[in-house]
Amino acid sequence: MSEKAKTLYPTKRGDRSKIAIIGAGAVGATLAYACVIAGHASEVVLYDINKQKVQAEALDIAHGIQFTPMSAVSGSDDIEICRDADVVIVTAGAKQKPGQSRLDLADATVGLMKTIIPAVQEVAPDAVYILVTNPVDVVTYASLKISGLSPEQMFGSGTVLDTARLRYLVSLETGVAVQNIHAYVAGEHGDSEVPLWSSAEIGNVPLRHWGPTLSGQQFDTELRERIRKDVVESAYRIIEGKGATNYAVGLAVSQIVGAVMRDEQRVLTISTLLKDWEGISDVCMAAPTIVGRNGAGRVLTPPLTLAERDGLTESAQRLREAARKLGF
Amino acid sequence: MSEKAKTLYPTKRGDRSKIAIIGAGAVGATLAYACVIAGHASEVVLYDINKQKVQAEALDIAHGIQFTPMSAVSGSDDIEICRDADVVIVTAGAKQKPGQSRLDLADATVGLMKTIIPAVQEVAPDAVYILVTNPVDVVTYASLKISGLSPEQMFGSGTVLDTARLRYLVSLETGVAVQNIHAYVAGEHGDSEVPLWSSAEIGNVPLRHWGPTLSGQQFDTELRERIRKDVVESAYRIIEGKGATNYAVGLAVSQIVGAVMRDEQRVLTISTLLKDWEGISDVCMAAPTIVGRNGAGRVLTPPLTLAERDGLTESAQRLREAARKLGF
Amino acid sequence: MSEKAKTLYPTKRGDRSKIAIIGAGAVGATLAYACVIAGHASEVVLYDINKQKVQAEALDIAHGIQFTPMSAVSGSDDIEICRDADVVIVTAGAKQKPGQSRLDLADATVGLMKTIIPAVQEVAPDAVYILVTNPVDVVTYASLKISGLSPEQMFGSGTVLDTARLRYLVSLETGVAVQNIHAYVAGEHGDSEVPLWSSAEIGNVPLRHWGPTLSGQQFDTELRERIRKDVVESAYRIIEGKGATNYAVGLAVSQIVGAVMRDEQRVLTISTLLKDWEGISDVCMAAPTIVGRNGAGRVLTPPLTLAERDGLTESAQRLREAARKLGF
Amino acid sequence: MSEKAKTLYPTKRGDRSKIAIIGAGAVGATLAYACVIAGHASEVVLYDINKQKVQAEALDIAHGIQFTPMSAVSGSDDIEICRDADVVIVTAGAKQKPGQSRLDLADATVGLMKTIIPAVQEVAPDAVYILVTNPVDVVTYASLKISGLSPEQMFGSGTVLDTARLRYLVSLETGVAVQNIHAYVAGEHGDSEVPLWSSAEIGNVPLRHWGPTLSGQQFDTELRERIRKDVVESAYRIIEGKGATNYAVGLAVSQIVGAVMRDEQRVLTISTLLKDWEGISDVCMAAPTIVGRNGAGRVLTPPLTLAERDGLTESAQRLREAARKLGF
Repeated sequence: MSEKAKTLYPTKRGDRSKIAIIGAGAVGATLAYACVIAGHASEVVLYDINKQKVQAEALDIAHGIQFTPMSAVSGSDDIEICRDADVVIVTAGAKQKPGQSRLDLADATVGLMKTIIPAVQEVAPDAVYILVTNPVDVVTYASLKISGLSPEQMFGSGTVLDTARLRYLVSLETGVAVQNIHAYVAGEHGDSEVPLWSSAEIGNVPLRHWGPTLSGQQFDTELRERIRKDVVESAYRIIEGKGATNYAVGLAVSQIVGAVMRDEQRVLTISTLLKDWEGISDVCMAAPTIVGRNGAGRVLTPPLTLAERDGLTESAQRLREAARKLGF
Repeated sequence: MSEKAKTLYPTKRGDRSKIAIIGAGAVGATLAYACVIAGHASEVVLYDINKQKVQAEALDIAHGIQFTPMSAVSGSDDIEICRDADVVIVTAGAKQKPGQSRLDLADATVGLMKTIIPAVQEVAPDAVYILVTNPVDVVTYASLKISGLSPEQMFGSGTVLDTARLRYLVSLETGVAVQNIHAYVAGEHGDSEVPLWSSAEIGNVPLRHWGPTLSGQQFDTELRERIRKDVVESAYRIIEGKGATNYAVGLAVSQIVGAVMRDEQRVLTISTLLKDWEGISDVCMAAPTIVGRNGAGRVLTPPLTLAERDGLTESAQRLREAARKLGF
Repeated sequence: MSEKAKTLYPTKRGDRSKIAIIGAGAVGATLAYACVIAGHASEVVLYDINKQKVQAEALDIAHGIQFTPMSAVSGSDDIEICRDADVVIVTAGAKQKPGQSRLDLADATVGLMKTIIPAVQEVAPDAVYILVTNPVDVVTYASLKISGLSPEQMFGSGTVLDTARLRYLVSLETGVAVQNIHAYVAGEHGDSEVPLWSSAEIGNVPLRHWGPTLSGQQFDTELRERIRKDVVESAYRIIEGKGATNYAVGLAVSQIVGAVMRDEQRVLTISTLLKDWEGISDVCMAAPTIVGRNGAGRVLTPPLTLAERDGLTESAQRLREAARKLGF
Repeated sequence: MSEKAKTLYPTKRGDRSKIAIIGAGAVGATLAYACVIAGHASEVVLYDINKQKVQAEALDIAHGIQFTPMSAVSGSDDIEICRDADVVIVTAGAKQKPGQSRLDLADATVGLMKTIIPAVQEVAPDAVYILVTNPVDVVTYASLKISGLSPEQMFGSGTVLDTARLRYLVSLETGVAVQNIHAYVAGEHGDSEVPLWSSAEIGNVPLRHWGPTLSGQQFDTELRERIRKDVVESAYRIIEGKGATNYAVGLAVSQIVGAVMRDEQRVLTISTLLKDWEGISDVCMAAPTIVGRNGAGRVLTPPLTLAERDGLTESAQRLREAARKLGF
């Protein structure tokens, strides 16, 4: 399959665009699906050590390309399939063993990165690297060290999904299109993440001035806290209900990929190696960041309340400790 | 959640368009995802008896609507959620029990239809009904009897996916865009299906005149048979590799839904109740059929070779026997 | 042509969606083109008194529908073509005669509305009406009186285009994707319009905190004033260079149409009849407003500086005087 | 403006994709609009000797990019703006002077190519060149000689638009979606063009077997001839009604551009230098041809009736004579 696909379109190299996805689990495969539907590149490839599975996922997507902007899709257990990719997205992680602690799992995942990242780098040294594997902030930090790549070229998906969830919930509360909810979640992709409420706007109305929501409430501390909790817990709820999350994360990461491929200079809460951002340094953590063909650009500095700043500092400390425990 | 979604947009009824999907398994959920990304309607709802699962699937998709044309997505175990849908797609089926024969499974699935179809009809009597549950041709036939609906209003997804697979394989063999491969698979969605090779064209070149393919072969009996087998067996291969097929079928059925919602009058190999089509009657089976807002329209009558006609007749007989065994 | 188109798809009425555009000049025709490409409806019709022209524009667009989501396009000088439209967009205006003053031209245009609006209302009484004809705020005010329609059902395109221009210029200054520039222009669609700088954000950074732009400037009074002037004058510059503006306005109005057709509840700076908005009443003027299937909804009340409020009040006064001069 | 646009996104060269359009008349500007809406590239530039006009057209499109996939748009009278383009489309032509014969006009247009083509080649030597300027077949032939480029790298838009018109008319006659009408027009883009009726299919039904159309007619010689005439004359009718054709041609050429940019290997009736195609050589003329990132590929050889072959031979002779009269 992949052999045929490779020779399918005899084109001068460099002219075709290529997305490589590492890991053909629910997230990786759904991400490939979303990228093919979006038409982000002329070629999408999936790599996984499970040959039968990766070929099956690729084939299941490829059968649908009649209904999408033209793309070639293939899957392989040979890393060679990623050669010359423009963007590499890493979704592979270690599988949790019975009784394994979260730390041990993270350790196993980082161990996996030590094998995978150098292998992909060899075939796609110039790609922009997006890490999606959880715990994404720590995995991104570790992978930067492992790879030696610049923080522009390699970053994590951060809280792009959490931001989408926050906007969705505010949209539900207000009845306004999610496209007009300008709110961001920063910090750890996880329990300590921080919605940046103070700079949130609906259209150009600051959230705190919005007035009563559809349910008659104000955007007071209670409602904000309820929404924050809902964002953090919704992943757990979805996993409880269906065993995994894949659809929204597929679209969220596909948007990051699109921002890179089309050099959009778009503001996204990706996880990058921060350097004196709001006093935070030497940790990978989500903040509104400009994303284009060169990868991660300027990190924005929105106004923060003291509480928001404290929350971010705490989030950073948690992440730094987690990294340290893993030896980084 | 679904309660809130229902009251989210207080709009005069009849103005909003709505797609209802019955069954939140891999096919139903991926179909919902594909429909939301395609922007086929202003509302997509999922119904399933497993409340936790259907809510999780709907929520996982809803979190991504920032990245799609605006749609409301919700899930419920209350059939009421399907009220006034414009299109209803049935993907629910009985679960195979250990040791259960295919016939027993089909029997259980048809039994399920006797419960589901009337329940949906009560809340969405004017919808166009698309059956996707396998064995789709027999389930469609039975559902027509159960519902009393006209064969225009209710039909099956037939071989739309098989047709996509056939075109994909011909595209791989020739290097021509799949959009320019005009070939159809008719008959049973299953082992006895018949690729209509004699009327197949690449651009406007009949397949038999194409000359050597990329691999140097001609489109002779051997290559055609290999491709036919590959189409039939690819579902098995994908299921073996990943446990289910969902991505391509999601896009394929989404195209049928789009043809209805936008009244496209598009030619699709859906499964309809045939009336003296090539001598075949009183069986639901796939043939190239025009699909629009009123559902299934004219069934095309392409030229057939004797072998193709024999194949279709045999396919019809198999399907009629299968229906009879199930008491229809 | 239109006859054939009408009978083309024999579908139950009410199921197909329809957009009617009044006036087949550069704006009307380009808007039709943008709507067809966007796939906003299953039918787009153009009405104009110039039969040959309207048929030519419709035919020129129709020839391209192979490359768009399926739509039927037709043009006619018979208002009947607009029957049962879901949205009606009025782009027709009086032609400026040599030596005619702007006031006389406006008077002639309003006179035209007295003929057109009731005629369209007769065939499409339930449509949402969007006025695009300039001077759009005054024409909208007059048309509301002429039609007796509610301010929800009938509104003007306002400063949706000016807002897009503002964002484009801020995007150029900062290098950030225009999609992340959250800034609005309110007031008259014309010289007295007011950019709402104080609530403008890039991502979630208030404009005033952005720091140096690509050219090294700050967003100080001087830069803001230059951008404001550029927004106001760019229409003149385009008209000078090419004789008309049509492309951006086509996309801007198409977005309003999409917000209605898909019930998006999107925030757009349309021109509506204001009722005690920031102390302003009884005038049609642009403000950030929620747009959905029912037309114009809630008008947002962003925080304003005194200067912004004064500018808006002045803009309202100008518009009220203009309306009074025209006898409204 | 263009200066700013150039420095807007400081990205490593070679990573961004770029489309350059020569000539900012109705066709060139509408093509730019269609390409920007389609998101074919990260940058679209317009070149024209009329500085004020080309800047106005570019600005009018650029103001709308908020509503499109992210693209930078700029216009200039400095050919430098086309540097490193991936695709160059030539729409510029000589203006007809009063009393000037068609031959003299063609001569002036070819003269223009002698200036333009080498100038663009200098800044974009590796681009795929698409000629749209009429008489397109002769202009393509002459431009090939002028440029010394290979017939793969440089070709004309041929009858892609005529093919779309043919399909539209067959769609109107039958009520079937234009996407399912598989019919092609070959030969000269002009009066001697030849619809390839004998290989035309609706779905997989040969046109001649379709049976009665919506109007009760058969696809007999009379109906076919009426449609052929309609295709040929519709350009004249549109020009009579609106002074130019631009919308459909914009979409048609945008599809060719997309086929190149996304390496689609799509079948399109572009005009290429034929080499023993159906006995025809050394003339540029439309035939179904595979188009991808390398430009024009294999020319298909559909079955032809004697009449079709004679028509094509005659068309070729006309074009060769026309080229000879212009000194090629």
